[in-house]
Amino acid sequence: MNKFPYKLTPPKQVVNEAIRYLKIKPTITTVEATFNAIELYVAENIRAVMDIPPYNRALLDGFACRSSDLVYASEESPVVLKVSMNSSKLRPRECVKVNTGDKVPEEADIVVPKEYVMEYGDGIAIGRSFPPGYGIGRRGEDIRKGEVIISVGERLKPWHIALISSQGIKTIKVYKLPKVAVFSTGSEILEPGEPYRDGMVYDSTRRLVLSYLRWMGFPVEDKGLVPDDEVKVYLKFKELLAEYDIVFSTGGTSLGERDYTVKALSKLKPEYMVHGFAIKPGRPGAIAVVEGKLVFALSGFPVAALSELELVFKPLVLKLFNIKLRHPKILAKLTRRIPSQPGIVELYRVRVWRKDMEYYAEPLMLTGSGILSTLIHGNALLVIPEDSTGYDEGDLVEVELISW
Amino acid sequence: MNKFPYKLTPPKQVVNEAIRYLKIKPTITTVEATFNAIELYVAENIRAVMDIPPYNRALLDGFACRSSDLVYASEESPVVLKVSMNSSKLRPRECVKVNTGDKVPEEADIVVPKEYVMEYGDGIAIGRSFPPGYGIGRRGEDIRKGEVIISVGERLKPWHIALISSQGIKTIKVYKLPKVAVFSTGSEILEPGEPYRDGMVYDSTRRLVLSYLRWMGFPVEDKGLVPDDEVKVYLKFKELLAEYDIVFSTGGTSLGERDYTVKALSKLKPEYMVHGFAIKPGRPGAIAVVEGKLVFALSGFPVAALSELELVFKPLVLKLFNIKLRHPKILAKLTRRIPSQPGIVELYRVRVWRKDMEYYAEPLMLTGSGILSTLIHGNALLVIPEDSTGYDEGDLVEVELISW
Repeated sequence: MNKFPYKLTPPKQVVNEAIRYLKIKPTITTVEATFNAIELYVAENIRAVMDIPPYNRALLDGFACRSSDLVYASEESPVVLKVSMNSSKLRPRECVKVNTGDKVPEEADIVVPKEYVMEYGDGIAIGRSFPPGYGIGRRGEDIRKGEVIISVGERLKPWHIALISSQGIKTIKVYKLPKVAVFSTGSEILEPGEPYRDGMVYDSTRRLVLSYLRWMGFPVEDKGLVPDDEVKVYLKFKELLAEYDIVFSTGGTSLGERDYTVKALSKLKPEYMVHGFAIKPGRPGAIAVVEGKLVFALSGFPVAALSELELVFKPLVLKLFNIKLRHPKILAKLTRRIPSQPGIVELYRVRVWRKDMEYYAEPLMLTGSGILSTLIHGNALLVIPEDSTGYDEGDLVEVELISW
Repeated sequence: MNKFPYKLTPPKQVVNEAIRYLKIKPTITTVEATFNAIELYVAENIRAVMDIPPYNRALLDGFACRSSDLVYASEESPVVLKVSMNSSKLRPRECVKVNTGDKVPEEADIVVPKEYVMEYGDGIAIGRSFPPGYGIGRRGEDIRKGEVIISVGERLKPWHIALISSQGIKTIKVYKLPKVAVFSTGSEILEPGEPYRDGMVYDSTRRLVLSYLRWMGFPVEDKGLVPDDEVKVYLKFKELLAEYDIVFSTGGTSLGERDYTVKALSKLKPEYMVHGFAIKPGRPGAIAVVEGKLVFALSGFPVAALSELELVFKPLVLKLFNIKLRHPKILAKLTRRIPSQPGIVELYRVRVWRKDMEYYAEPLMLTGSGILSTLIHGNALLVIPEDSTGYDEGDLVEVELISW
């Protein structure tokens, strides 16, 4: 069944082991909490510095007073309260007129709606009681001073910025992710823009990897194309590891004569190295830790590289840097059976659509033809865990919506 | 029911009318199709320049030949084919050895799997026939030259970049969205970082708007805070309209004495102006077209401003610039009834979660307290259309997942 000659390592094990050897960390930097902070990852638990609302606030137009003054009020024997002009200190049997949103004096615990109030000389008459808290938005009821409003690792969206600003917080600490260098290998590879030659392949994988990492928030640098020569690849790794904490290559991970990238990687004398992931697609990928830095040799095929990024790199950096990436998930009915090999984590691209009140997921072909087009025809990812033998047609599966 | 004194205009009408007066356009610029193009909007239909696969390709290891040569082949009378070393021109009764992925000669229309082949002298013997196309990935079967692979207006994701590169396309045309200026108004407003003073409010709305626009891909500039003085606001609009195609203000749109922003806006002699949208929240907002440029006076409250952005500005610019924004949608069961006023488009923030095999949506309170915290506790938006009277508890509603 499994023709791969090396031992395949489950992605969870790779993540747990690699983390023990990796010494890279994001640096922490302070930025103003405004539009430039969008999509950055926060490096601290951000806590509320003030209660919201900052004071007890009227939720309606009426009169603020003590509920205890009205306990015995009834239509037959209304209670008369004096209307005070001084809202800073409210005495018993006094009330103060408030509009919606106004600050309510500390001593008042209710706001009587104006509809229930009759003028009575200099004061007002009220013919019923109200439970404590009625008509009042209590200080701190929305947000309480000291509570965590945004957790460490969260990726900032516009509403996070709004919430931080509403607390009067001007600057926040965010992670500056390490710079990543990416190069591709392969003598059969053409750069986009070059004239096509028969049997050659345009380099889409390097650009996919660069874009994917940029999309995750990494600063990336494109380090071009290296011919499939073990020494040249080795020297490229060496050169880049002197400057970058994370280095990616694409191609040269397949079997036999052509796995010069993996050979070059092992010559770097890594503290930790795995060649062969228990994932599909993407089995031939390799990962290594060299002097605490991360080197990732991805497959040359774009779909395999995407799978290695999703199933190995992403869980690794989310855990390593304690950052969060949330893609929405949805339950959808499979339109056809997909078998899966136990012991292998499989990544399927699927097309999700809605018909009436149900969602359907059509798995797209991964082998043979149809490889590149599925990159855009698919709009969701289905991960089949390693202990599963697959799913039947009609099974409800949870898929991650990546671009719907 | 509706206490707003002005005529409320439905958002669809605002979009359709404003578009007739607006003269702003995104400029079109050429960029390299790599990581720097991520999240930009494409300004053209991108068409495939070559077939993928670029030639007929073997889907398995075996021998490529003509299916017509094997029509009468059977176990009892196998057909013998000569193995040719010249794959460029295949004659009848000849075959050529191919591995998975290899180019198959034009003349061959099948690849016979090696398992069905026996050596026979210098040639091979095959004991069965195969239907035309067997074992071959046909040229253009994945992507056909000339077909649109990415439509105009699409926002570029990593897989789009991969697909474009795989076609050898180096540069693409993208939209450069117009620069947007945003200022806030209000004498009760404090800037984050300033010491808190009783009764004042920190400016979260301007930062929300800036972040939201930046998130959509607009270049934005923060133009600070202007006191609530009609002349100063008027002069600010004038100054900014000289330089920017789109200008936003926040605050000063509410009723009576304090709607200085709206008064200043009307003094700009707009060709088109609407004050009061048939949306909730966000009714008091105003929109104007001044010499073909767009001015948007948003409410001062962050949640109302967000609603104006979502229900009026977003549909307007998507239509005006012909760009696409896809947020995933999901059907979820409402946990409580939400009434809605016919004639008004309502925006609810909801919290969506999954329990067993179903999704639930809990509408978050919009009035009273709980306004700011719902900005982060909510993870989806529910739009109630203008012809609806609302939904019952248990109704399945489609919500847009904004940050789940």
